[in-house]
Amino acid sequence: MSDMKTRLNAAVFGEVMLRLSAPGREPLLRSARLETWFGGAEANVAAGLAALGHSARVITALPDNAIGDACLGELRRSGLDTTHVVRSNGRMGLYFHASGAMQRPAEIVYDRAHSAFSLMPHEGWNWDAALDGVDWLHLSGITPALGAAPARAALDAAQRAREQGAKVSFDFNFRPMLWQGREAEAGAILGELVAQATLLFSSAGDLARIMPLELTGRREADFDSSAKAAFARFAGLECIVTTFRQSRGTLEQTLEARLASRDGVIAAGPETLAGIVERIGGGDAFAAGLIDALASGTDHQTALTDALTIMAVKHSIPGDQCTVRHSDIAAWREGSDLKR
Amino acid sequence: MSDMKTRLNAAVFGEVMLRLSAPGREPLLRSARLETWFGGAEANVAAGLAALGHSARVITALPDNAIGDACLGELRRSGLDTTHVVRSNGRMGLYFHASGAMQRPAEIVYDRAHSAFSLMPHEGWNWDAALDGVDWLHLSGITPALGAAPARAALDAAQRAREQGAKVSFDFNFRPMLWQGREAEAGAILGELVAQATLLFSSAGDLARIMPLELTGRREADFDSSAKAAFARFAGLECIVTTFRQSRGTLEQTLEARLASRDGVIAAGPETLAGIVERIGGGDAFAAGLIDALASGTDHQTALTDALTIMAVKHSIPGDQCTVRHSDIAAWREGSDLKR
Amino acid sequence: MSDMKTRLNAAVFGEVMLRLSAPGREPLLRSARLETWFGGAEANVAAGLAALGHSARVITALPDNAIGDACLGELRRSGLDTTHVVRSNGRMGLYFHASGAMQRPAEIVYDRAHSAFSLMPHEGWNWDAALDGVDWLHLSGITPALGAAPARAALDAAQRAREQGAKVSFDFNFRPMLWQGREAEAGAILGELVAQATLLFSSAGDLARIMPLELTGRREADFDSSAKAAFARFAGLECIVTTFRQSRGTLEQTLEARLASRDGVIAAGPETLAGIVERIGGGDAFAAGLIDALASGTDHQTALTDALTIMAVKHSIPGDQCTVRHSDIAAWREGSDLKR
Amino acid sequence: MSDMKTRLNAAVFGEVMLRLSAPGREPLLRSARLETWFGGAEANVAAGLAALGHSARVITALPDNAIGDACLGELRRSGLDTTHVVRSNGRMGLYFHASGAMQRPAEIVYDRAHSAFSLMPHEGWNWDAALDGVDWLHLSGITPALGAAPARAALDAAQRAREQGAKVSFDFNFRPMLWQGREAEAGAILGELVAQATLLFSSAGDLARIMPLELTGRREADFDSSAKAAFARFAGLECIVTTFRQSRGTLEQTLEARLASRDGVIAAGPETLAGIVERIGGGDAFAAGLIDALASGTDHQTALTDALTIMAVKHSIPGDQCTVRHSDIAAWREGSDLKR
Amino acid sequence: MSDMKTRLNAAVFGEVMLRLSAPGREPLLRSARLETWFGGAEANVAAGLAALGHSARVITALPDNAIGDACLGELRRSGLDTTHVVRSNGRMGLYFHASGAMQRPAEIVYDRAHSAFSLMPHEGWNWDAALDGVDWLHLSGITPALGAAPARAALDAAQRAREQGAKVSFDFNFRPMLWQGREAEAGAILGELVAQATLLFSSAGDLARIMPLELTGRREADFDSSAKAAFARFAGLECIVTTFRQSRGTLEQTLEARLASRDGVIAAGPETLAGIVERIGGGDAFAAGLIDALASGTDHQTALTDALTIMAVKHSIPGDQCTVRHSDIAAWREGSDLKR
Amino acid sequence: MSDMKTRLNAAVFGEVMLRLSAPGREPLLRSARLETWFGGAEANVAAGLAALGHSARVITALPDNAIGDACLGELRRSGLDTTHVVRSNGRMGLYFHASGAMQRPAEIVYDRAHSAFSLMPHEGWNWDAALDGVDWLHLSGITPALGAAPARAALDAAQRAREQGAKVSFDFNFRPMLWQGREAEAGAILGELVAQATLLFSSAGDLARIMPLELTGRREADFDSSAKAAFARFAGLECIVTTFRQSRGTLEQTLEARLASRDGVIAAGPETLAGIVERIGGGDAFAAGLIDALASGTDHQTALTDALTIMAVKHSIPGDQCTVRHSDIAAWREGSDLKR
Repeated sequence: MSDMKTRLNAAVFGEVMLRLSAPGREPLLRSARLETWFGGAEANVAAGLAALGHSARVITALPDNAIGDACLGELRRSGLDTTHVVRSNGRMGLYFHASGAMQRPAEIVYDRAHSAFSLMPHEGWNWDAALDGVDWLHLSGITPALGAAPARAALDAAQRAREQGAKVSFDFNFRPMLWQGREAEAGAILGELVAQATLLFSSAGDLARIMPLELTGRREADFDSSAKAAFARFAGLECIVTTFRQSRGTLEQTLEARLASRDGVIAAGPETLAGIVERIGGGDAFAAGLIDALASGTDHQTALTDALTIMAVKHSIPGDQCTVRHSDIAAWREGSDLKR
Repeated sequence: MSDMKTRLNAAVFGEVMLRLSAPGREPLLRSARLETWFGGAEANVAAGLAALGHSARVITALPDNAIGDACLGELRRSGLDTTHVVRSNGRMGLYFHASGAMQRPAEIVYDRAHSAFSLMPHEGWNWDAALDGVDWLHLSGITPALGAAPARAALDAAQRAREQGAKVSFDFNFRPMLWQGREAEAGAILGELVAQATLLFSSAGDLARIMPLELTGRREADFDSSAKAAFARFAGLECIVTTFRQSRGTLEQTLEARLASRDGVIAAGPETLAGIVERIGGGDAFAAGLIDALASGTDHQTALTDALTIMAVKHSIPGDQCTVRHSDIAAWREGSDLKR
Repeated sequence: MSDMKTRLNAAVFGEVMLRLSAPGREPLLRSARLETWFGGAEANVAAGLAALGHSARVITALPDNAIGDACLGELRRSGLDTTHVVRSNGRMGLYFHASGAMQRPAEIVYDRAHSAFSLMPHEGWNWDAALDGVDWLHLSGITPALGAAPARAALDAAQRAREQGAKVSFDFNFRPMLWQGREAEAGAILGELVAQATLLFSSAGDLARIMPLELTGRREADFDSSAKAAFARFAGLECIVTTFRQSRGTLEQTLEARLASRDGVIAAGPETLAGIVERIGGGDAFAAGLIDALASGTDHQTALTDALTIMAVKHSIPGDQCTVRHSDIAAWREGSDLKR
Repeated sequence: MSDMKTRLNAAVFGEVMLRLSAPGREPLLRSARLETWFGGAEANVAAGLAALGHSARVITALPDNAIGDACLGELRRSGLDTTHVVRSNGRMGLYFHASGAMQRPAEIVYDRAHSAFSLMPHEGWNWDAALDGVDWLHLSGITPALGAAPARAALDAAQRAREQGAKVSFDFNFRPMLWQGREAEAGAILGELVAQATLLFSSAGDLARIMPLELTGRREADFDSSAKAAFARFAGLECIVTTFRQSRGTLEQTLEARLASRDGVIAAGPETLAGIVERIGGGDAFAAGLIDALASGTDHQTALTDALTIMAVKHSIPGDQCTVRHSDIAAWREGSDLKR
Repeated sequence: MSDMKTRLNAAVFGEVMLRLSAPGREPLLRSARLETWFGGAEANVAAGLAALGHSARVITALPDNAIGDACLGELRRSGLDTTHVVRSNGRMGLYFHASGAMQRPAEIVYDRAHSAFSLMPHEGWNWDAALDGVDWLHLSGITPALGAAPARAALDAAQRAREQGAKVSFDFNFRPMLWQGREAEAGAILGELVAQATLLFSSAGDLARIMPLELTGRREADFDSSAKAAFARFAGLECIVTTFRQSRGTLEQTLEARLASRDGVIAAGPETLAGIVERIGGGDAFAAGLIDALASGTDHQTALTDALTIMAVKHSIPGDQCTVRHSDIAAWREGSDLKR
Repeated sequence: MSDMKTRLNAAVFGEVMLRLSAPGREPLLRSARLETWFGGAEANVAAGLAALGHSARVITALPDNAIGDACLGELRRSGLDTTHVVRSNGRMGLYFHASGAMQRPAEIVYDRAHSAFSLMPHEGWNWDAALDGVDWLHLSGITPALGAAPARAALDAAQRAREQGAKVSFDFNFRPMLWQGREAEAGAILGELVAQATLLFSSAGDLARIMPLELTGRREADFDSSAKAAFARFAGLECIVTTFRQSRGTLEQTLEARLASRDGVIAAGPETLAGIVERIGGGDAFAAGLIDALASGTDHQTALTDALTIMAVKHSIPGDQCTVRHSDIAAWREGSDLKR
């Protein structure tokens, strides 16, 4: 468990989306209602960090209309620092979502193109101000996938953060759909970002996109060897982490985690999940948990195990954002059913 | 998987009801709200066929009021051909429904007597028009149970369909409660309908209502022997199919299916269901899946297995109607949890 | 009231949008819920015609995803002929909406750019098929505002309709926001469409965008003189119609209508509205009412008065689409409070 | 205002129905939800009396299923004595309801035929027990309209009540739709019930159904002369009362009341209603208010005025039942907007 | 199963609270809505007894405002006798509640201090009237924890009940949080109440609070020995009962029960619960089931087993109150999934 | 309209409550649901100031539980500075609310006693920190009514604010119910607070509580003379302001305002309100509007008129808090019905 003396001044940079979900187990738009949430890979990590007691700033761009206003309000409600949210041209990215059930998968229909964030020119960001006082910056591979301008902005941010001595975590989060038409350049762009990272969330398959790797198809071995190669190539990297999810439908899944450092590789899990409420945001919760633990100087094994539990707890919480506190870790492990 | 070159011009004949469901796990009328759905054994089959890509016509009678209007709209929304829906005297049949939970069974309170459909005189139907172009007609044993007029109408429809070379499927669907006071004639009436069927959904117990059978209590053996007897008696019958459901409460059940043809008997399953969302309409989904597959010339084993999977998937979908598409079969079997 | 012997085979061409409304009088996204509707100027007219007993086809393009599926279902539920709805690339156009109250105006945030409809190349439409059998085509000025391709498609449709002897109605519906960056060409494009129209919905200010007019600022006189000029220029024009709305906030408004033909000008109203439920779709309801009446050969004065009443009744109906039937006109005028 | 020393032991006899209402201003079944209420002319009067501090018993028959259970629970929640509710064969009578708006009338679709109450044989009621201790019985003209058995039962009840010295109030409440096929006998049946009444709610037109009257079309004069004739014919009658409603749509209406006794005629009102929330149950609230006042020995003029105000207040309360207390009368007249 | 000839005239004495629950799996107040229920340990037992066919009176104090009115109505809706509910000064006790999920525990925030019930002076209760005709009184250890006045009132009630020959059941229900500041006196007060009880619900740990006991940590053995000691000390005690719950999170739990009489100890269970809907009120349902069975003279083993099943069924029913009927026991054990 | 160059660093000190409202026009707890809002006189002013572009800090105490967490989140969502919100012992103050309708008043049931705020010892506040940088402090007469500690704290805050040169506004907001038992000291306590105010919201009747005044019953004259007397007594007072509300039920009201300075008295209004959505928070919106305008140096007449319009607009917005922006003033006056 992290020591709150080491409260981070964290920042994340990325797009926030409005999620429009069908109620309960209904298909989309059957009963003329939608439930709304806001989320995005990076903002989810920020919310997770705020719930764990850190200061967490969201650097993003929102449309200057009532939808952007509502998003801003929700970010504030989540306890996030929104002083560096820019209001600009473009729309609010959104996605439609219908829960799955049993072995029927949940369905997501993205509608995020042409968002204010993705349209923002890279010169539009003021990194001196936005990163002032920040000691940890979190980015993800979604941002460079949204276009050349966000890609450049992410790199600018990472470099600026490193210059001021901040740690940089990068979640590879490779989304082929978003890279359509720009597949050729993906490797180079992502490689530049990885080069700035001190903490990297990525699988062996992800790493194979930015450097030549021979993969065997054996999950753990591939991760270990690719991590080793990554450490050799990227001098700033301190840890590489990944999670493995095995699905037996929407209700029952198993999670495992693996962390490589220059000292070796450790593993955590499996966490067996039953009666899953929400799968979205699980990886982001893991990232928040790990950043929290590593920043507190927790040993790697405890950090990895706690982060995996936080990820597990997140599967019981509806919505994109993680609201898990440190005290929830023990409660989960005890399996008590009522907290008065 | 069916070949869409063989798109059916299917029709069903039967009553559609308004379902009034308590929200969530609540008992009926606890919180002054009801959720509404439309359904009926035959219309559910039609909806299932429409979702699988076929043209599906619903031949029914609806009251000429706002409730009938709403029902008509919902049938259209489900993609059904409503050009032969008649508006007539009588009320909308309806049923109240409260979900069960754990081992507490769901509760249904029927309120379907005196419906427009059941009051419709048998001469009121225009089969020449209603069955024009139809190559598959689906009926169920509920219709003759609703009264002498619907019984006669169902028989008229079946005979007309057979005359024009259409296939006729008949789901035995024996409901003792509906036959109260007419038990004595049930066997003869149902027998006449079975005599028109090419595809029959029935258990051994069902068949024993229309012909003398010696049953042993062994489910599979009884089905096989009664099917053999049925083939002997009913020259037009091509397939007899049944499903077996084993319940361990409302959440956990097991499904199996068995299909007899003049070439022998095959089986499919078990499909083990966990976390069931909706049990209603499962059998109708199975019927739609089997008709789809058989009409496409799929081999019997694949047809039966796919139909059983479609039935399983239906248990994850709220409401009476089946919206399963062919692509959902594979997704279910993979057990993936998210479809972007 | 129209004579149902003259049932139209109407068609409309235009974009359908998903509307996302805040519940009740809430601001957008305050309570994490949205209510959904589908609508669009042309589809609203089609729905109005269907409610009045006509066959009404919607020619549009929808995205090939679950949102498009839901829209298609809703159009069918409204009784519309969707056999010529195309599924294509692009997103679902949508708009967010929060009701106003008292003198606080309702708020609409459009998010319709890059829709499947607007991205559809003009060669993508098959007018021979889509307009087959159609005797009335309705278009609006929103379609050409959505881009060069939709503008060309609208013109193609209008010309094709006129060639086969169909009437063409055109609602000027000028939206400056949509024409941004294409203001210069708006006049010419709209003029070409007006040239195909037999029935035109437009104000004097609208007409001044396509031909030189000297307006005095006196509403009625300007309409009369501009109509006269339009008749002189556009040989095919039979009627020009407009409505005047005077708002005293969201609850209390006054409606008037004016119709010019080559025989002169007539007026209807004022209709005084109190306790308005929904303002959106009022003009489309008026258009549907007038097309219905004119197509039935009703005299102009009755047609205009009835159409204005239908528009008034629409203000009592939530949602974009008009569901007013002929019998509702008399009930409204009687002011009875309960229909058993 | 009534003196609570004269607390009534009132009873009512009549059918209770389940009301299924569309939410807000929606048409029926647009958004797959219904809101539920229970009501019925006589039960509404009983609820009104209970709210005013009297003991009020509902004598009715309910189906022996979950819907009947829920109805029974709601009657108890309203503070009614349900010890003489019978559970019997038949269904729950129900009605569908959609609010009107502006000048668009509300819509009611009745579905009450074959109810447990209407099917109850007249010998099934045990009047000795059911009316034990009762000093006021309220009936309405709806009950005899439901069939010969309910008609006979109502008469039995009225005679039994009179024998034990109880007052009997009868609300004529003539519903032509319910008398279809029995129009010829309506006058005689209703006349017998009027003959038992001490307090009669009826218009001149109502009275003309049971005795020959020459009406002039002038509302007040016709009421006065018909009342005079009724007093001449029915020796037990003490008061005849009527209300006049003038509708200017669903939101704005005017109410007046008129009471004839053997001493002459008095009037109350007009009460001008604006922003009406619910029109259903208004007349029943008036009846409860008048019974309350007359039973307390309040002078006729005050009684009539207070009853009319209670009716007015009821128009601000959603649902069928009246929950107005004595203190609400003054608050209404003051027009204060907030009660802390 | 109890014999209804032995219908109890039961009474309970205790506080009723308003429960404010977050919808679904949401955290508290995320979506600006709360769902409401009424409950309290003793009222829950009363509701359970009423559902099982007994007369059940709730003796409590409610605030004299709209919240108290609503509570009173709900108690009546549950079929309870509310003729001895007092309206007095103070507030409505309430508690906020958010469902847990998976291994994340449910959360309860109590807000019950200063309630009308807890503020009621002990002389305020009229036990002669309130217990008139009562043959079974149920109390719990929550009441004395609420303050000196409720403690004294509970003791008065118990003594009065015993004097008139009624049975007294007492549920130890020790809540340390409520005894804060009065821990020292808890043992003595609870001991006095136990001394009045004929049926006691308590664990070995509970008993150790009122008498010196040497516990070994072995659940069953400790219960057996402590029960033996209690029988030695409390002459009136006939049965001591306890349940053991083993939680594996909110969804999966195991229940067992143990009953000691002067004849020995018997056990029931385990009942394995999967897919739990609601944990609150489980123990109260068990108490109601056991009282029902014992009062009917059912043998102890059947009584204990049935009570445990009723407790299990309650876990499938949302809300605090038990609505299980005798027929539900068999249905649960069969595991059927649909009751038509 | 205020000039944003003079952005205030405002702070308010007072209690925030959770509001639990019945949905729509329902009575409390009829349909087992409540809608939630947070509000409080001072926080409402802060929210109003934030919406108008100022920095607004809420200084308050909240319970350290999930309800307090939710309140904190909502305050942040409203854009308020919550860095000086203290978490302490005690409960969340709350109030239940049911909308009125027509002339039936809304109903409020307060349940705010024993709140964390009211229990906070006056030494618990750190005014140096909490008021650091603050140039405007707003207080109300509710705070001293909550107890001696809050009264002392309010005075401490006011004095500290004056010492650092900040303006202090004080809303008299006299609530007799809250002063029960402390009526004798109310005048002295309130007088001390008025002595610190530069801007005072109070009626003549309010002022008469703190100083001897001869009132005539003529509203305007009494206000003018009492203001004169107040200026004579309180040297720091710059403006005294009041509003007059005339209610014709819940829907139709008239507002007027009056402002006295040492230069004389001016008036604004009447604003006639029709179709009121929410009355709560109207006065707080007025206060926010006036503070905004005066702080910007707007002339008194414009300031008063704009504040009254902001108060009017607030009546169209559900919930306690004011979200009116400057641009809404003009929109309201235009009476436009739709803002795209």
